[in-house]
Amino acid sequence: MARAPIVLILNGPNLNLLGSREPEIYGRDTLADIETRCREHARRRGLAVDFRQTNDEGELVGWVQEAKGRAGGIIVNAAGYTTTSVALLDALLAVDLPVIEVHLSNIFRRESFRQHSLVSLAAKGVICGLGASGYLLALDAFARLLRTEEEA
Amino acid sequence: MARAPIVLILNGPNLNLLGSREPEIYGRDTLADIETRCREHARRRGLAVDFRQTNDEGELVGWVQEAKGRAGGIIVNAAGYTTTSVALLDALLAVDLPVIEVHLSNIFRRESFRQHSLVSLAAKGVICGLGASGYLLALDAFARLLRTEEEA
Amino acid sequence: MARAPIVLILNGPNLNLLGSREPEIYGRDTLADIETRCREHARRRGLAVDFRQTNDEGELVGWVQEAKGRAGGIIVNAAGYTTTSVALLDALLAVDLPVIEVHLSNIFRRESFRQHSLVSLAAKGVICGLGASGYLLALDAFARLLRTEEEA
Amino acid sequence: MARAPIVLILNGPNLNLLGSREPEIYGRDTLADIETRCREHARRRGLAVDFRQTNDEGELVGWVQEAKGRAGGIIVNAAGYTTTSVALLDALLAVDLPVIEVHLSNIFRRESFRQHSLVSLAAKGVICGLGASGYLLALDAFARLLRTEEEA
Amino acid sequence: MARAPIVLILNGPNLNLLGSREPEIYGRDTLADIETRCREHARRRGLAVDFRQTNDEGELVGWVQEAKGRAGGIIVNAAGYTTTSVALLDALLAVDLPVIEVHLSNIFRRESFRQHSLVSLAAKGVICGLGASGYLLALDAFARLLRTEEEA
Amino acid sequence: MARAPIVLILNGPNLNLLGSREPEIYGRDTLADIETRCREHARRRGLAVDFRQTNDEGELVGWVQEAKGRAGGIIVNAAGYTTTSVALLDALLAVDLPVIEVHLSNIFRRESFRQHSLVSLAAKGVICGLGASGYLLALDAFARLLRTEEEA
Amino acid sequence: MARAPIVLILNGPNLNLLGSREPEIYGRDTLADIETRCREHARRRGLAVDFRQTNDEGELVGWVQEAKGRAGGIIVNAAGYTTTSVALLDALLAVDLPVIEVHLSNIFRRESFRQHSLVSLAAKGVICGLGASGYLLALDAFARLLRTEEEA
Amino acid sequence: MARAPIVLILNGPNLNLLGSREPEIYGRDTLADIETRCREHARRRGLAVDFRQTNDEGELVGWVQEAKGRAGGIIVNAAGYTTTSVALLDALLAVDLPVIEVHLSNIFRRESFRQHSLVSLAAKGVICGLGASGYLLALDAFARLLRTEEEA
Amino acid sequence: MARAPIVLILNGPNLNLLGSREPEIYGRDTLADIETRCREHARRRGLAVDFRQTNDEGELVGWVQEAKGRAGGIIVNAAGYTTTSVALLDALLAVDLPVIEVHLSNIFRRESFRQHSLVSLAAKGVICGLGASGYLLALDAFARLLRTEEEA
Amino acid sequence: MARAPIVLILNGPNLNLLGSREPEIYGRDTLADIETRCREHARRRGLAVDFRQTNDEGELVGWVQEAKGRAGGIIVNAAGYTTTSVALLDALLAVDLPVIEVHLSNIFRRESFRQHSLVSLAAKGVICGLGASGYLLALDAFARLLRTEEEA
Amino acid sequence: MARAPIVLILNGPNLNLLGSREPEIYGRDTLADIETRCREHARRRGLAVDFRQTNDEGELVGWVQEAKGRAGGIIVNAAGYTTTSVALLDALLAVDLPVIEVHLSNIFRRESFRQHSLVSLAAKGVICGLGASGYLLALDAFARLLRTEEEA
Amino acid sequence: MARAPIVLILNGPNLNLLGSREPEIYGRDTLADIETRCREHARRRGLAVDFRQTNDEGELVGWVQEAKGRAGGIIVNAAGYTTTSVALLDALLAVDLPVIEVHLSNIFRRESFRQHSLVSLAAKGVICGLGASGYLLALDAFARLLRTEEEA
Repeated sequence: MARAPIVLILNGPNLNLLGSREPEIYGRDTLADIETRCREHARRRGLAVDFRQTNDEGELVGWVQEAKGRAGGIIVNAAGYTTTSVALLDALLAVDLPVIEVHLSNIFRRESFRQHSLVSLAAKGVICGLGASGYLLALDAFARLLRTEEEA
Repeated sequence: MARAPIVLILNGPNLNLLGSREPEIYGRDTLADIETRCREHARRRGLAVDFRQTNDEGELVGWVQEAKGRAGGIIVNAAGYTTTSVALLDALLAVDLPVIEVHLSNIFRRESFRQHSLVSLAAKGVICGLGASGYLLALDAFARLLRTEEEA
Repeated sequence: MARAPIVLILNGPNLNLLGSREPEIYGRDTLADIETRCREHARRRGLAVDFRQTNDEGELVGWVQEAKGRAGGIIVNAAGYTTTSVALLDALLAVDLPVIEVHLSNIFRRESFRQHSLVSLAAKGVICGLGASGYLLALDAFARLLRTEEEA
Repeated sequence: MARAPIVLILNGPNLNLLGSREPEIYGRDTLADIETRCREHARRRGLAVDFRQTNDEGELVGWVQEAKGRAGGIIVNAAGYTTTSVALLDALLAVDLPVIEVHLSNIFRRESFRQHSLVSLAAKGVICGLGASGYLLALDAFARLLRTEEEA
Repeated sequence: MARAPIVLILNGPNLNLLGSREPEIYGRDTLADIETRCREHARRRGLAVDFRQTNDEGELVGWVQEAKGRAGGIIVNAAGYTTTSVALLDALLAVDLPVIEVHLSNIFRRESFRQHSLVSLAAKGVICGLGASGYLLALDAFARLLRTEEEA
Repeated sequence: MARAPIVLILNGPNLNLLGSREPEIYGRDTLADIETRCREHARRRGLAVDFRQTNDEGELVGWVQEAKGRAGGIIVNAAGYTTTSVALLDALLAVDLPVIEVHLSNIFRRESFRQHSLVSLAAKGVICGLGASGYLLALDAFARLLRTEEEA
Repeated sequence: MARAPIVLILNGPNLNLLGSREPEIYGRDTLADIETRCREHARRRGLAVDFRQTNDEGELVGWVQEAKGRAGGIIVNAAGYTTTSVALLDALLAVDLPVIEVHLSNIFRRESFRQHSLVSLAAKGVICGLGASGYLLALDAFARLLRTEEEA
Repeated sequence: MARAPIVLILNGPNLNLLGSREPEIYGRDTLADIETRCREHARRRGLAVDFRQTNDEGELVGWVQEAKGRAGGIIVNAAGYTTTSVALLDALLAVDLPVIEVHLSNIFRRESFRQHSLVSLAAKGVICGLGASGYLLALDAFARLLRTEEEA
Repeated sequence: MARAPIVLILNGPNLNLLGSREPEIYGRDTLADIETRCREHARRRGLAVDFRQTNDEGELVGWVQEAKGRAGGIIVNAAGYTTTSVALLDALLAVDLPVIEVHLSNIFRRESFRQHSLVSLAAKGVICGLGASGYLLALDAFARLLRTEEEA
Repeated sequence: MARAPIVLILNGPNLNLLGSREPEIYGRDTLADIETRCREHARRRGLAVDFRQTNDEGELVGWVQEAKGRAGGIIVNAAGYTTTSVALLDALLAVDLPVIEVHLSNIFRRESFRQHSLVSLAAKGVICGLGASGYLLALDAFARLLRTEEEA
Repeated sequence: MARAPIVLILNGPNLNLLGSREPEIYGRDTLADIETRCREHARRRGLAVDFRQTNDEGELVGWVQEAKGRAGGIIVNAAGYTTTSVALLDALLAVDLPVIEVHLSNIFRRESFRQHSLVSLAAKGVICGLGASGYLLALDAFARLLRTEEEA
Repeated sequence: MARAPIVLILNGPNLNLLGSREPEIYGRDTLADIETRCREHARRRGLAVDFRQTNDEGELVGWVQEAKGRAGGIIVNAAGYTTTSVALLDALLAVDLPVIEVHLSNIFRRESFRQHSLVSLAAKGVICGLGASGYLLALDAFARLLRTEEEA
């Protein structure tokens, strides 16, 4: 594995609207703000970040597939595809990398159709409800996890 | 808002086949016929129409996002994405424009998996079962609605 | 069929309270206001209107039965009987006239027990969430529909 | 009990339309035809018949209540109230007379919402799918049943 | 509000049979007995009582509607309409008066179809299983409640 | 069709125990008593009866198959196979003869697993809860039905 | 039974927080206030009160068991154990004393997991939604009930 | 129809990973291997093959639409879109060509969310669990099917 | 294993009626036709066929048990026992031979009670909807499968 | 009752394969081993054993029927018929003998379709998960039970 | 392991009331009677017994935890905690000792909420419906089981 | 608020067994290890930690109640009480402090009865599947959260 292991951070549909979209649920940070904080946070922990967003399920699947052999782990906030995309789940299962699922809001206090994540079935861990900080915590978890693997 | 407020009319997957596809369910009008009738109908009511069709969920999401600040309202016939696309629902919630959901057929007399619309959760109103006329009635509703807002 | 085809407009329980009852859901128009607007709207489209309200399921069933041979179509807002009255559904199926179901509010964003309409199973079309305008749109639909039949 | 015990025959909503209403399901006999056949059939078996129809749930409940002390048994075809009327069920339980439930069509081959009869919970027996003959068979059953009781 | 605030006491279908109907469930008091006890009990607490019974859903709805501006509260034992009448629920929501739901028997130990009350959704409180005393307790509750409002 | 059309009467598992088995549910008639009454009743109506009982699902299926071209109709009391035997249902659908389903007890007042009959899906009519008389009523129904067909 | 029959009043988890906890749901009375009002109310009706609260399911079960032979009845507001404690239900069934279930709020207008009370299966009656008054009404009910038993 | 009728073989998301992805479930053949075997197999049976893969639901829908008038049949392994894509189902229904659904694994022994195929609702036949051979068997089925049609 | 490995082909209830039974669903081939085609098809692929049919669940179970050590694989069309026979499932699991499940019709487009196959839980593969050809395709699959095993 | 009361031990489908069939679930004892151990165990407790196995549901039903008047109790391991045979349940209810249900494995840790035993509804007791010893424990239970009855 | 291996016998809430509590369900033995019989029975089989009862879920969990390294097996009758205590299940899974679940009554003939045991998921075997004898049979099973392990 | 805000860390039943209990699920850290790491981690972020474990639901509820006015936030791993304790949920709602729910394993990949957390309904955020690190990440989240509040 490279000096600075890459963590792929994938953001699903409508997350490009962050900051303006229902801020009482999703907070006032824009996705660019989050990307900046992630890059900074990762850098201090010796990680590199590949941060992307798409509204397209197929593109999301493709990005997961490409992670194989390139990235050390994946942070995924699949947004609207979280509970509906078997294709995304299958891609995550196929690449066989550690996955941490992140949601800005606590999905378990929202509508029932937002609560049964397919992504969770391929995830090592889940962090939700902690806003943009959830991404940083996930990076911390990867910092620990990838260091351990390197040492083992 | 401009002189002629724009109503975005979005058509989901397979609606490009209208006229030839199962005409006993969907009628014999082609989508081009419907577009023509919508343009004409809108023009007489002082509305402009932006009429589109796609088979792609991500593109549909993108078009909704772009409506913000451009359109006064959205008419959406999401077809096969009606009951499955949380991503589309989230986009409609995010742009916070009045939405009228249209279906050519009466979806409540069809298979059960066609009956629980996610789009409805973001829609002001729903019109279904009235064929191509449903689009025109939705334009009438917007004509009234946008005029009222202007006056208020 | 007569010069001015009759459209029977049936209103179910508690619609006589419109205007005062939960106006944030049902609007501020009284039922008399809606009747006046319907009559005017119909007249301009060459239709006659027979506009009624009852709290009684049996009376509603009876009015539907009497429509046979008298009316060209039925607009029905069955209110509280929408999801519970098999008797009303059977009456609508029996008279075999075109039916358009109207609801003032978008029932799909309300309690789950308001969402599975039995009336829909006998309806050609459904219009909901557009307030009193829904009645007018339904009249427009009948204007088109009855004209077509006449010509055919 | 009187010489000719009375069997109350109650018909629910829309059965007044028999003969013209969906004859492929309900047959071509009118309700008057059925009444005539029932009277004749009952007379030959030493029974009297009190034959009624209403579209009104409350009236149906009232007729059941009045049967107490007057009738020896009740034949009830509750039509649209079969699966929805707890009030009718309670009335039948309260009068504590033998009840035979009749349906013209085989309700178990129809829509699922027609299949869970509340009336059955108060009925001694159920006869369905045999058209107008079902009433005559129910009368035969009462002829046997009431004779036996008389003798016992 | 008048000197003696009126409490409307509404009784649904088959309660006119009380005393003779399944006394092991409903007790041996007739409805007239209960009315007498309610009047007496109310009088001593400075309340007036308007006590009614009907088998008719529409009439029940109408009586609720008329309560607006006349009564200070409603006690409702909807019997067989408790779990089936959306129309009654809507009427209770519309008049916006305090409602106490009463049942003679403990409905939660009976058949499952008797357990999901729609009336409860509009009720301030529910009292069940305490027989005819339930009405008197509900009057006590109104005595406290209406006094408080008067003072406030 | 022969002079005396044959009605095949099929009895399922444990009906050979009738008379001794739970008489408070199934009555005190033995199956032999019922057979005797059926033969006599059929003879007077110009019908012949082929009366059988088996505990074996496969044999029941075989008997139904053999009815084709031999019998004019089938009366079936499938007892324990009523709700579980798709094989029996398929046999009944395959021979395409009129079928009347009979049950001694009112299955709709018994355990829920006794209530969803598969046989009903192939039956013209259903008679239940009327004890041994149910067989005789079914024969009456066939007497009418087969006569009509002969005449038609 | 003693001169002043004892009514055991049991309060489940978190009711010790009353007054400060979500007052818009549970009101502003503290549990000590309610106890004082209960004692006073009981005294005037010739009843003694044993008033307790615990957060511990096992202790609640134990208190119920000890009631046998000591108390004439139990008022139980099991709060969070209402819908989950089979152990509490079994204890109530075992002591075989009259039980009245009380809830401060109308549990039928709250989350679905608060609505299926196990306690109700052992209760003679249920009073909910009437705030602290519910306890007093339950004491009234016991005053009547225990007097009657004494006299019988 | 052309000399060598075209069979369109459509592969859904993640099938491009075959061979490396969870080989204990999906086998060790790559998609290119399968394509080669299909071409060879088809050639010997006088069929042409148009073999494609995409991760994109919209593209899959588009390819189905284009089949109309070009292909004689469609073999579809929709992978992750099998159970979620109403859009794909609608496209298959719209083109009205014979469809055979293929899955490498036996989906009925996997997670429940993989078992209710929407594609099946538009398919003539289904072949699953036979690995890459499933494609060849589907081609055999088309060889028979298209020959028959040609002859008829 | 013998030169020509035996494939046991088991047919469940009512398949002996093929050709006459609902030909629009099951086709016009008789079971004898299918047997002949299977024998011929198998012979050309170096397989022997043991082809049987029974209406009896117990016999079907017995035949499966006897396959152990005699047959190289089992093709089973369990017809009406497909979704109901745990006994058959257990037999198939016990003999531990490769099993291919075949259905003439596409069971996923039929009634819901025909769709959850227990046989599938013991099957390597499933082929349905391809009529009699399904058997031949299953033989092809066995030809490949048994050859491979022999070679391995 | 005879000196040595007979306990009928009935074994359902596939239990004849014990010892070879999935030994990690069912153990390595053959059914003959179990029979031998049961005979020996019963003899020492003054009981006689009638030990049988069948794959045939009808035969199982017949054996239960014959037990009446011959046996003092029935031990039944119905295997695959446990959860599907209403016919077996009815036979057990009809003979009205004490029944102990035995399963070799703990069915509550297996697939959900193995967990809802119909046999349990007619059983006095259930013993499962204790392998062949379960039969011996059931015999012990009968030794106690039948001795008690004799003495009473 | 010690000469006399210890079997921990744990009894859940309300079992301390045995003998007086609903004897028609639970029998007339007191828990002390059962303890005496268990001690005697165990002694003769070379086992020691540690017999406890508590109404407290936490204490039950603690007792299970302490069994590790002290006891050879656990007999648990968790009574009201059987179906609700994930904490108890987790404790049983954690100590990893053989567990036999005992119930005095046949829980499968009681209310549905008593039928899905969580304890069963950690139990080797289950014995229910055999009253106090169930404990003795469980000791017999442990006598065999622990002897075998010792020998192995 | 004090210099070093207190974070209460509550651990539910069986977590005292960590390290020895099913380490493939829960890891090899003991609870004392986790406590040490939490104290150290908190100290460096200017937080104080109050770390507790109990098997007792009532004690857990009590500890939550005491947090009010003492602690700035609560980290809760309720283990076996996560999905069953309404009492715990109510306590968390009552104290109205920020709550972060932690689980060592990814509960969404485990048995279904472990997946619907009641605690989540009162939690700001959820972290699961990241082992002991989850506690540290939750402390990080509180470090950020409490700092922000202080500044605001």
